[in-house]
Amino acid sequence: MINIAIMGHGVVGSGVVEVLLHNNDGITSRAAEEINIKHILDLREFPDSPLSDRFTKDFNDILNDESVKIVVETMGGVKPAYDFVKSCLLAGKSVVTSNKELVAKHGQELVTIAKENNLNFLFEASVGGGIPIIRPMTQCLAANKICDVIGILNGTTNFIMTKMIKDNTDFKEALSIAQQLGYAEKDPTADVEGHDACRKICILASLAFGKHVYPESVYTEGISNITLRDVEYASKWGGVIKLLGKVSILENGKIAVTVYPAFVSNESQLSLVDDVFNAIMVNGDATGEVMFYGRGAGKLPTASAVVADVIDCVKHMKARKYLDWAPAEDNYVVNYLDIKTRLFIRAKTDNYNADKKLIVENFGDVQFLSDEGDEIAFVTDENIERELRTGLEKTGLKADAVIHIL
Amino acid sequence: MINIAIMGHGVVGSGVVEVLLHNNDGITSRAAEEINIKHILDLREFPDSPLSDRFTKDFNDILNDESVKIVVETMGGVKPAYDFVKSCLLAGKSVVTSNKELVAKHGQELVTIAKENNLNFLFEASVGGGIPIIRPMTQCLAANKICDVIGILNGTTNFIMTKMIKDNTDFKEALSIAQQLGYAEKDPTADVEGHDACRKICILASLAFGKHVYPESVYTEGISNITLRDVEYASKWGGVIKLLGKVSILENGKIAVTVYPAFVSNESQLSLVDDVFNAIMVNGDATGEVMFYGRGAGKLPTASAVVADVIDCVKHMKARKYLDWAPAEDNYVVNYLDIKTRLFIRAKTDNYNADKKLIVENFGDVQFLSDEGDEIAFVTDENIERELRTGLEKTGLKADAVIHIL
Repeated sequence: MINIAIMGHGVVGSGVVEVLLHNNDGITSRAAEEINIKHILDLREFPDSPLSDRFTKDFNDILNDESVKIVVETMGGVKPAYDFVKSCLLAGKSVVTSNKELVAKHGQELVTIAKENNLNFLFEASVGGGIPIIRPMTQCLAANKICDVIGILNGTTNFIMTKMIKDNTDFKEALSIAQQLGYAEKDPTADVEGHDACRKICILASLAFGKHVYPESVYTEGISNITLRDVEYASKWGGVIKLLGKVSILENGKIAVTVYPAFVSNESQLSLVDDVFNAIMVNGDATGEVMFYGRGAGKLPTASAVVADVIDCVKHMKARKYLDWAPAEDNYVVNYLDIKTRLFIRAKTDNYNADKKLIVENFGDVQFLSDEGDEIAFVTDENIERELRTGLEKTGLKADAVIHIL
Repeated sequence: MINIAIMGHGVVGSGVVEVLLHNNDGITSRAAEEINIKHILDLREFPDSPLSDRFTKDFNDILNDESVKIVVETMGGVKPAYDFVKSCLLAGKSVVTSNKELVAKHGQELVTIAKENNLNFLFEASVGGGIPIIRPMTQCLAANKICDVIGILNGTTNFIMTKMIKDNTDFKEALSIAQQLGYAEKDPTADVEGHDACRKICILASLAFGKHVYPESVYTEGISNITLRDVEYASKWGGVIKLLGKVSILENGKIAVTVYPAFVSNESQLSLVDDVFNAIMVNGDATGEVMFYGRGAGKLPTASAVVADVIDCVKHMKARKYLDWAPAEDNYVVNYLDIKTRLFIRAKTDNYNADKKLIVENFGDVQFLSDEGDEIAFVTDENIERELRTGLEKTGLKADAVIHIL
């Protein structure tokens, strides 16, 4: 029997208890050992829980209990999660977390401490919720050099975009529906401004290319400025708008990482990823494009990813999993303005044909999506973004929307 | 340094050599040990290979070499692969294979021998080529009870169907293009009649539900009877035709396993899986729907899956992976006629309105896809297939096509 502790009894933490109790037989047989929840840390009271006798408000009850070999962290946030997790690792306990903020900020230090102490620090649930991605990326694709990773990493914004695309609901209204359904928080900033997606692409970038990437170094743009006009133009172009996290390795060994809404062609698998679903596309030099799709959030999907990590810890009490990467490096992440891209540009115009001429003069061969009228919209060819922005300035047009093309 | 041997230097086997040599640095660092190809077994000569000095025609050179700890089997077929693999396991060597026929036929015996000898028998490449599926299904979804698995498991037939759907090419012509491109073999029976997909769904069924499933026990129907008329009706219905392998667990603990072409709605992720790509959708009780997508065949994708297994063997020389299942059981697979489904039915008619009336009398509420004329086509509601077939008999219609609906 292995004793574990769970820190945090919110949505994910209580889901972990539920999955462990509900699928106990299968889990025990897969772990080849019974998993016993010895402590649950939470400041609140849960008198109706079947495990009400296991609750504690004192972290030291877990830290000082030598019989606890694995600690699950589902508190969220960096404080006090970071101190607790670090203390647990230093005390010889393996840790499983669903906390993307913690991993994006302190992952490199924590994997290193785990490595030095021959312990596991696993975080499958921190990206893609119930979708297996961390393990497949590091293990199954171990024979590949990864070229790029592109993901729809945030369920809330994907739900909002789906509402805008399918039901012609504008951003504000779609956000309000998401809030009513519990998909978006009262303060939706972290989701709609792309911060959540940014943390996740940072974790994937760190794993895929071996050096830590901090969210602050990543150009991040949310979906709050996307209008139904843009959605319409995307459809005319033959695609949909999705919030994407992207990372790719450049020839000079540096990486390009961005989070922004982008036109995605209807031919791409990513275009069919709707509602709260997430998907991550990994491109390996040998294996080509591989995509992982599923529920990126939610109590039970996320909890089941946590429990899978716990089972893996039990199976690897002595053998470490190979999850680690080097510290961040200056100038490793290139400026997004130096990356090649295509752009969709939409602007008001007083003289359609004159502006059309100006656009062709400055951008060469572009694809116009607008009909003659008081608005002009087009998609550029691929070029360094800085050049495209300069081209736009030269036209004198004041753009109402500038959106990337995948 | 770990010595390995590779049996078979065909497409996949030579790909394994290529991936191991080409990505050597990354692989060594992930395996935490250098991997040395000591022997390659093939009856042919390869004087131009960079490893030409490692070739042997005698299996005993591998079997009797105690320094060889891991053997890769990429010969294909059951004879002599089965004898060779079994001998290797009995001699204390872990085995990695890409051979789906071998695993579908003898997998249960081989995983059991591996287990008894504390060795690994891994076969990620046998299903879905380069797509990580075996490991995610068994490990990442370890906390779930799996409800069903649905897959586009054969690249050749998916290429043919894509040609039929997108280019309006008929089956014969599409097959001939597939043969010219090297996607289909001269004798395409194993692919187009569904036998290859059947082996793969048997492997997934065995893993997902814990008892061996033999291909002979699975209702298997290929795509050679699919016409452009059917493709057209599917499009009218709002979908595409795909060859699917499906397995689900029933309330009584038995399983339903089938391989057949089916109408797949355009809303489903599976509908966008085109050309030689494969996809596998797994439904877990906690995690919900998860899909894995990528190249289901091809030299380097398949080879990279083999190499990932080799790396995993190196990392687990003493700790076994948890891949095993029980022997087959009589009556465990239910007759497909006893499974609930919807059917698309197409038949010639001399009297459209009279036949329409007959159909409604026998099937109740159906969805007609045809316009009045000499052909009648419709989609039934869900019912036990046997009842649907009886209903069809009662109408007296001679069906030109009966196709399942996903």
